Amino acid sequence: MSQLDDYQGCAQEIMARAEELAHYSEMAGGLTRTYLSKQHAAAAAQITAWMSAAGMSVRRDAAGNVIGRYAGTDPSAPALVTGSHFDSVCNGGKYDGNLGVLLPISCIAQWHRRGRRFSFPIDIIAFAEEEGVRFKATLLGSRAVAGTFNYAVLDNLDQSGVSMRQAIVNAGFDPQQLPAAAWSAAAIKAFVEVHIEQGPLLLEQNMPVGVVTAISGATRFMVELTGLAGHAGTVPMQLRRDAAMAAAEIGLYIERRCSGVAGLVGTVGILEVPNGAANVVPGAARFSIDMRAERDEVRLAAVEDVLAEIGNITRRRHVEAILSKTHEANSVPCDARLQERLATAIERAGLPPVHLPSGAGHDAMAMAAIADVAMLFVRCGNGGISHHPDEIMSVADAALATEVFMYFIESF
Amino acid sequence: MSQLDDYQGCAQEIMARAEELAHYSEMAGGLTRTYLSKQHAAAAAQITAWMSAAGMSVRRDAAGNVIGRYAGTDPSAPALVTGSHFDSVCNGGKYDGNLGVLLPISCIAQWHRRGRRFSFPIDIIAFAEEEGVRFKATLLGSRAVAGTFNYAVLDNLDQSGVSMRQAIVNAGFDPQQLPAAAWSAAAIKAFVEVHIEQGPLLLEQNMPVGVVTAISGATRFMVELTGLAGHAGTVPMQLRRDAAMAAAEIGLYIERRCSGVAGLVGTVGILEVPNGAANVVPGAARFSIDMRAERDEVRLAAVEDVLAEIGNITRRRHVEAILSKTHEANSVPCDARLQERLATAIERAGLPPVHLPSGAGHDAMAMAAIADVAMLFVRCGNGGISHHPDEIMSVADAALATEVFMYFIESF
Repeated sequence: MSQLDDYQGCAQEIMARAEELAHYSEMAGGLTRTYLSKQHAAAAAQITAWMSAAGMSVRRDAAGNVIGRYAGTDPSAPALVTGSHFDSVCNGGKYDGNLGVLLPISCIAQWHRRGRRFSFPIDIIAFAEEEGVRFKATLLGSRAVAGTFNYAVLDNLDQSGVSMRQAIVNAGFDPQQLPAAAWSAAAIKAFVEVHIEQGPLLLEQNMPVGVVTAISGATRFMVELTGLAGHAGTVPMQLRRDAAMAAAEIGLYIERRCSGVAGLVGTVGILEVPNGAANVVPGAARFSIDMRAERDEVRLAAVEDVLAEIGNITRRRHVEAILSKTHEANSVPCDARLQERLATAIERAGLPPVHLPSGAGHDAMAMAAIADVAMLFVRCGNGGISHHPDEIMSVADAALATEVFMYFIESF
Repeated sequence: MSQLDDYQGCAQEIMARAEELAHYSEMAGGLTRTYLSKQHAAAAAQITAWMSAAGMSVRRDAAGNVIGRYAGTDPSAPALVTGSHFDSVCNGGKYDGNLGVLLPISCIAQWHRRGRRFSFPIDIIAFAEEEGVRFKATLLGSRAVAGTFNYAVLDNLDQSGVSMRQAIVNAGFDPQQLPAAAWSAAAIKAFVEVHIEQGPLLLEQNMPVGVVTAISGATRFMVELTGLAGHAGTVPMQLRRDAAMAAAEIGLYIERRCSGVAGLVGTVGILEVPNGAANVVPGAARFSIDMRAERDEVRLAAVEDVLAEIGNITRRRHVEAILSKTHEANSVPCDARLQERLATAIERAGLPPVHLPSGAGHDAMAMAAIADVAMLFVRCGNGGISHHPDEIMSVADAALATEVFMYFIESF
C-alpha cells in the first residue's frame, strides 16, 4: 500500500468513527453530548478503546479528560501534545471537536502499524468539556490541563440543579484532584489542535486545510433596554420610547461598524421583546452583542464606537440601557514557528498554505497558557455551517488533513 | 345641591366603583378579567346590581352581555344606546371599558333620583367581551349585538382547551340563542361610547375630554424571516444572511415611513430570534407589524410601501420572508351630527371641543354596523398609559365627562 492509500484509509476510519461517536447523544436524531452525562462517559470509553487499539496507554484525569500517550524513545523528552474536545453543543455537528481527537488517533495507529516511534511522546487529549452547555462555563477540560481552571464554577448548577462538583463526583472523579490535572509547561514541546473551520473561508478559497494565525479576541455584552410601553394604535410616533426600535438601530450600527474591517465581526444573536404583543409598543427589549477580531486593537476600537453609539441612540430615543459585559478575552496568537512548520507540511502535501484567523474559541486558547500552540483548520462544507446537524466535511479533506498532520509531526 | 355637586358626586361614585370592579380579577395584585371566567360572572352580577339600583331593568343575552334599560315615556321610540366592555386584557387598567359602563349608570341614577325620564329609553350595554384575550377573537359582545358575530369562533379553544361554545354553556348561556342577541337597526336612535383615551393626545393638549372623529383602520401581519444560522465568530459580515438584522432594518423602515404622517402609526410589537444564542448569527426572526390610520388610503399606501421595502431588504440580504396578514379592518367614521352634538355638550361644559381619532379599536366599531356611532374620549393620565396597571384617570376628568355625557343625552 502506498502512503496515499494510508491517508485515505485513515480518512475513512475517521469519518466512520465520527458517525459512530455521534450516536453517543442525549437526543434522538441529533448530537447533544454534554459534560459528564451518561452518553459522555460512554463516548469517553469508546475513545479510550480506540486509543488503546492504536498502541497508546490511556488515563483519565479529574476533569474527565481522556489522555492517550504514544510513548517516545527518549523518556526525558517533552511531549508533543494534540487533541480537542468530545463534548458538543445542543444538536451540534459530528466533527466539531471530535475531529481533533479522531484524526490523531488514526495517525498514531498508522505509525504504530508501521512500527514508527518518535524520540518524544505524543499525547492526545480528548478534552471532556469545551462548549459550556451544561454549566455555562467553557473550556473546562483544557483549563484543567493548563492550570487555569476557575474553581468557583464548581458551584455552577445545571438545569436540574446539580452542581458541577456533584456531577464530577457522580461520574467517579474527585474534584479535589483537579489541581493535579494541570500540566507543567516544561512537559510540553508544543500543542497542536486539528479542528473543522466552522466557517466558510476555506470553502470560499477552495482549500481543504489552512493554518490558523490567531484565535480572535472577543467581547460580549447583554443589553437590557427600557423605554415606555404603549398602545400601538394610540401613541403617536413622535411620542414613543420604543425599546425594540432602539435595539434595531443599535444592531444595525454594530453590523455597519463591523462590515468592511478585515477580521472584525459583530453579532446580535439574542434579540427579544419580553412578552411582546402585536398591539403594544415595546417598553423593553433585550439583546446580546458579540464582537470579535484577530487584532485586539481593532476589536477594542469597534467596541468603543458601539458603546458610544448606544449612548447616542438611547439618549435620542429616551430609552434607558443597562449593559453587562459577559465575556472579554484577548486574541491568542498561534506560534509563528509552528505556523511555519504547518505551512511546510501543507506545501509537502502539494498545496499552497493558506493562513486564516479563528473567529471561534478553541481548547488551544486555554493551552496557550502553558505551551506554544498551533491549529490546523479543515474545510467545513455546506457553506461553513457548524454547531448544527448540517455540519459536514468530506473524506477527501480528512485524507488531506491526515497527510498534513502526519508530515507536521514527522518534521519534529 | 347644585348640578355641579351632582357631577362631582357621580365622579366619586364612578371612581369608587372602578376600584371595586377591579377586584373581580383572575390575578392577585392586578386586573385580569377574561370572557366568562368566574370573576367575569361576579363582575356581571355587580354591574347588574348597580344598574338595578339606578332604576333600570336588567337582562343578559346569550353572549353574556349585561343590558340595562332606563325606560322612556314613548314605548315606540328607538333607544339611545351606550356602553362599553367589562372584560380586560391581562394585567390591564381599571378604566378601559369599565368607564363606559360605570359612567352612564351613575348618570342614569342621577336622572332617576331627579325623577327625570326621556321620551326614548336609554340602554346601557356592558359588553361581555372586547379584548380577545381568552379566545383570540375580539369584540364578541358588540358583534353579537350588531348581528355580525362570526360563529366559527365558537370552536376557538382557550389555553385549557375549552371551546368558546362550551364556555358559554358552562356560564349558563345558550350558544343557539346568539342570533337572537342581535338588535335591529330600527330599535336604535344612536350609539355613544365613553372610553378612556388610552393615548397621550388629550394630555398633550391639556383637555379632559375629546370628540372621536373615527376609529382608525388597521392592518396586521406576522412575518417569519429565514436567513442562515452561522457561528458568530467565523462567518464574515459580507457572507451573512442574518435574519435578525433584516428584521431590524424592516422595523426601522416601518418607523420611518409612519413618522411625520398625521394619524398614521406603525408598530413592531413582537420581535424575536427563536432560540437565539449570543454566539450564533440568527438564522430566523419573527415579528409582527401593526399599521393604523384614521384614513384608509393613508394606511393602505403605507402598507404597500412597507411590503415593497420588505421585498427590497430581504432580496438584498438573501433572506426569505413569509408574511401572513392576521387582521385588516377599514376605518369606522363617527357620525358627523353626533360629533357635533358631543362638541356642543363640551362647549356647554365650558370647554373648547377637541377632535381626535381613536387609534384603538372599540365596541363602537362593531355597533357601527347597525347604528350611527359617537365616542367621547376621557383623558388618560400617566403619559397616556393603558392596557397596564398604571392606567389612571382623575376624578375631576370623570366629573367633566359626566357633565358632558348628561348634556349630550339631554340634548335629544
